[in-house]
Amino acid sequence: HPVYKAPTGNTLHAKSWQTEAPLRMLLNNLDAEVAEIPEELVVYGGIGQAARNRESLEKIIEVLLELDEHHSLLVQSGKPVGVVRTHPEAPRVLIANSNLVPEWATWEHFDELKERGLMMYGQMTAGSWIYIGTQGILQGTYETFVSCGQKHFNSDLRHKLLVTGGLGGMGGAQPLAATMAGATFLGVDIDPTRIEKRLETRYIDKMTHSYEEAIQWVMEAKEKGEAVSVGLVGDIGDVLERLIQDNITPDVLTDQTSAHDPVNGYIPNGLSLEEAAKLRKENPEEYKALSLKSMARHVEFMLELQQRGSITFDYGNNLREFARQGGCENAFNFPGFTPAYIRPLFCEGKGPFRWAALSGDPEDIYVTDQALREAFPENTHLIKWLDEAKEKIAFQGLPSRICWLGMGEREKAGLIFNELVRTGKVKAPIVIGRDHLDCGSVASPNRETESMLDGSDAVSDWPLLNLMSNTAGGATWVSFHHGGGVGMGFSQHAGQVILADGTDRAEACIRRVLYNDPAMGIFRHADAGYDIAKKVGDDNDMLI
Amino acid sequence: HPVYKAPTGNTLHAKSWQTEAPLRMLLNNLDAEVAEIPEELVVYGGIGQAARNRESLEKIIEVLLELDEHHSLLVQSGKPVGVVRTHPEAPRVLIANSNLVPEWATWEHFDELKERGLMMYGQMTAGSWIYIGTQGILQGTYETFVSCGQKHFNSDLRHKLLVTGGLGGMGGAQPLAATMAGATFLGVDIDPTRIEKRLETRYIDKMTHSYEEAIQWVMEAKEKGEAVSVGLVGDIGDVLERLIQDNITPDVLTDQTSAHDPVNGYIPNGLSLEEAAKLRKENPEEYKALSLKSMARHVEFMLELQQRGSITFDYGNNLREFARQGGCENAFNFPGFTPAYIRPLFCEGKGPFRWAALSGDPEDIYVTDQALREAFPENTHLIKWLDEAKEKIAFQGLPSRICWLGMGEREKAGLIFNELVRTGKVKAPIVIGRDHLDCGSVASPNRETESMLDGSDAVSDWPLLNLMSNTAGGATWVSFHHGGGVGMGFSQHAGQVILADGTDRAEACIRRVLYNDPAMGIFRHADAGYDIAKKVGDDNDMLI
Ligand SMILES: NC(=O)c1ccc[n+]([C@@H]2O[C@H](COP(=O)([O-])OP(=O)(O)OC[C@H]3O[C@@H](n4cnc5c(N)ncnc54)[C@H](O)[C@@H]3O)[C@@H](O)[C@H]2O)c1
Ligand SMILES: NC(=O)c1ccc[n+]([C@@H]2O[C@H](COP(=O)([O-])OP(=O)(O)OC[C@H]3O[C@@H](n4cnc5c(N)ncnc54)[C@H](O)[C@@H]3O)[C@@H](O)[C@H]2O)c1
Repeated sequence: HPVYKAPTGNTLHAKSWQTEAPLRMLLNNLDAEVAEIPEELVVYGGIGQAARNRESLEKIIEVLLELDEHHSLLVQSGKPVGVVRTHPEAPRVLIANSNLVPEWATWEHFDELKERGLMMYGQMTAGSWIYIGTQGILQGTYETFVSCGQKHFNSDLRHKLLVTGGLGGMGGAQPLAATMAGATFLGVDIDPTRIEKRLETRYIDKMTHSYEEAIQWVMEAKEKGEAVSVGLVGDIGDVLERLIQDNITPDVLTDQTSAHDPVNGYIPNGLSLEEAAKLRKENPEEYKALSLKSMARHVEFMLELQQRGSITFDYGNNLREFARQGGCENAFNFPGFTPAYIRPLFCEGKGPFRWAALSGDPEDIYVTDQALREAFPENTHLIKWLDEAKEKIAFQGLPSRICWLGMGEREKAGLIFNELVRTGKVKAPIVIGRDHLDCGSVASPNRETESMLDGSDAVSDWPLLNLMSNTAGGATWVSFHHGGGVGMGFSQHAGQVILADGTDRAEACIRRVLYNDPAMGIFRHADAGYDIAKKVGDDNDMLI
Repeated sequence: HPVYKAPTGNTLHAKSWQTEAPLRMLLNNLDAEVAEIPEELVVYGGIGQAARNRESLEKIIEVLLELDEHHSLLVQSGKPVGVVRTHPEAPRVLIANSNLVPEWATWEHFDELKERGLMMYGQMTAGSWIYIGTQGILQGTYETFVSCGQKHFNSDLRHKLLVTGGLGGMGGAQPLAATMAGATFLGVDIDPTRIEKRLETRYIDKMTHSYEEAIQWVMEAKEKGEAVSVGLVGDIGDVLERLIQDNITPDVLTDQTSAHDPVNGYIPNGLSLEEAAKLRKENPEEYKALSLKSMARHVEFMLELQQRGSITFDYGNNLREFARQGGCENAFNFPGFTPAYIRPLFCEGKGPFRWAALSGDPEDIYVTDQALREAFPENTHLIKWLDEAKEKIAFQGLPSRICWLGMGEREKAGLIFNELVRTGKVKAPIVIGRDHLDCGSVASPNRETESMLDGSDAVSDWPLLNLMSNTAGGATWVSFHHGGGVGMGFSQHAGQVILADGTDRAEACIRRVLYNDPAMGIFRHADAGYDIAKKVGDDNDMLI
């Protein structure tokens, strides 16, 4: 199979940076350093793809190479389906992935359509061409663990043991985030190759197939207050059962197995990877039933450990929902991470702001890091993060950075980056995007919009307004997805990426889009009755 | 309660026509001549509203009066929730109504949110401010009946009896459409005030409470080949039962009761309007159960008449689905109107193109009528329609017109209208919009996308791409709704309205939007494998 790599440097292959940028980011999503299974066009999150198939990918590239600034490409679940008439301040690519009319919005119907070549799963940033490898999730995970430490452990995670399942594309960020936050870490994955990948990229410190060895390592480290991370090969349910038997209670307990997809993601208890692959193919219904049962068992153990004192939360993979379906009635007795740790940030318009250097030169990212340090000297949390990130994060594919910025800050940062390009301080344009998991871009009642103050968890007018605002504001590409991290039926969300190419056009678009995007978070949370959001909105004279 | 009326004439109240236009069209939607229940802000389709409540309506008006061309208003289920930064070629209003994350996309959850003031039902053109009264649906209904006549009756509906239920906001177009197409018509509605309204506007010829009288009138007219329309007060199920007993088999049989909403729409068999209103309030669950049972009974009679030879089709109210839920297993044994009669039109990019004269002067519409006659001299079907419409249609609210135009034709018509404004041939700008029921703007597996050739009925990437294309192209307002004519969970669809104010900006926007909008229909149907769409796409060099 072909090897995908984004072009680097300052030479255009497409007609302008507006089309060169999506081209490079699409290929970067499929770079073997970035994607989990590039040969299947799978970027992350189980089956999250960047394009529907080889033919579609080639066609997208072909169209992007020819597209001018008066047209936009339409991508329907990873397939290019048309070109429409637009203008230079409109997005160059319009993307809709995995969307199904609600009554048919099930894995069963989706799989049928996928089987017939009519759909692909877009996850969040996979199908919207702004996944930047495990580091992308690192900051969010780090923010969550730090926030958890602030809330429950007096801001100090030393001598604390954090246990979790799943070390895949996103879950693989957990060990490094945990050790950066000061904790001792035990992560369990049934697939050894996933843990090996984390070893290679220095996201995890040690790996073993032996439960005893893993426990010895982590208990010793916890005792000494060492921020060490250990990856253990095994079924997470089995390992939690052992912990309970051995009377070991983690201080913090969560999970990032691919529970959102009970057929193509989660591995049922008792099956080897090979057995799972076989059963999945031969009898997906039985597979699903086993999966739900295993998740129920898995969550029962989590609830028991919560009883014993573990700070337990769901990390956005919809595990509780499927455990409930599998027979665990109290599955929702522990909270999701958003209401527990993230919503206060959302109320300030904060979210996972990220950018990539199209030059391919890491130095460009260090220049942007430095510019942010100078622009936000009072933000010590940010500066600590930028320092640690520079030291500990190995870039994958195009060099990139992520940090959570709020209302006002995103626009300011975007304008700074555009100036860096204009004045030649970086070697090529920069793209600025974000995860769909943001303050005003998603409706997901088991995750980002769980337990909203006014009960509006399921109202998905908001991500649609976000899509419209960013399209009307002039993002460089926009997307709308269904499913994502929590799976079919459970979320709808919008994405955007905007180009800083140093032009006046880019400046105008940045002023609009990087205002609108966090503003949606303020509007959404103010409308739901959150005081912080109302205050930020009032302070910025934004509310009508 | 206040009386709503759109301002008319050539004087601006808002800062530009770009905001004056949505303001006038919003008020026009609520004009007592147009709306079914203006005091509840209900425009049509049972509970389809233009704004969430009085307060929201006033706030929308207030913002529109002040909004400039660098900002856009966000409307979330009829409530104004923010203003974002945009530009002169972007939509001035961005609307999302009734959207729910699929797993929660039920009437039960919606009603709960509505009860708490968090939602409203947008139907299609109610919440997107381009409903133009019963005449809006007239052309679509006429096209359907004519197409049915072509297919089954050698293009001649004289001496043919058409029977249907429901003479409400949309269903009230059926009698006039039927008689314009040459048929004899019997329509049944349980609510006499609905039939009286059709008498007043001359959409129906006669009304009675007596089954015997109605039958005498229509059998006589059918015999003589007279295109007479009769409205009978009663339950449609009861009337069909009598027809079967009396051995009267309609030639054509359909239905437009508000079956899409089993609680707030359909009246269960055996209940008076008052009893229904009481039960709905006191025990909505029992109401729903009765409704589903009544619909099952209703459809059983339709199936029996189909057996006896009636050409029977579902007219887009989701009656079959709820009848199925009510216990009628074979409910889907008769087809929906789209695959039966409308899809061939969709494959040519044809759909319900409509426009309104903001001047309020009927003469402006006659000028546009004449301009179209001259622009499309070879289209005799269109010219016949324009002639009949001028003669038979009483305007409601702002004068308006509708006709189905296809790929290329819509752009041509839009540019002509913009020229008429520029050269002062009409007295004020014109707005051009459409129903959400269009070739590339809706996913609705029981209606517009029923039985797609490739099985992609439920794929809603398409209306989302339509929304993005029209937002990026520069429509004056855009909208995305869930629910609509088939109810919660069963459809997602996009709307657009574009202003022709005689400016160069409008011309540029029209060239883009009125290309993109029908192009979506070509892309969608070509991708699904329809030869006509592929041919139109190839002929216009549109496919990639
Ligand atoms: N912030 C968030 O809300 C957030 C962030 C990241 C990921 N997620 C969610 O977390 C999940 C994981 O994402 P990902 O991209 O890492 O997926 P992935 O498919 O790349 O990785 C999942 C991993 O779980 C492992 N696994 C499956 N079943 C297991 C079992 N029974 N025991 C042990 N390991 C098992 C797999 O081997 C795999 O390595 C997804 O559901 C994703 O949506 C949520
Ligand atoms: N082209 C299309 O697909 C299309 C077009 C128009 C309307 N519709 C659908 O048709 C339905 C009607 O739309 P509307 O705007 O006229 O709704 P409406 O609520 O204004 O009118 C519905 C009418 O049905 C009557 N009714 C209800 N139950 C009855 C019963 N048991 N017997 C006799 N009459 C009964 C009501 O009294 C009312 O007058 C909706 O479901 C709408 O979505 C579809």
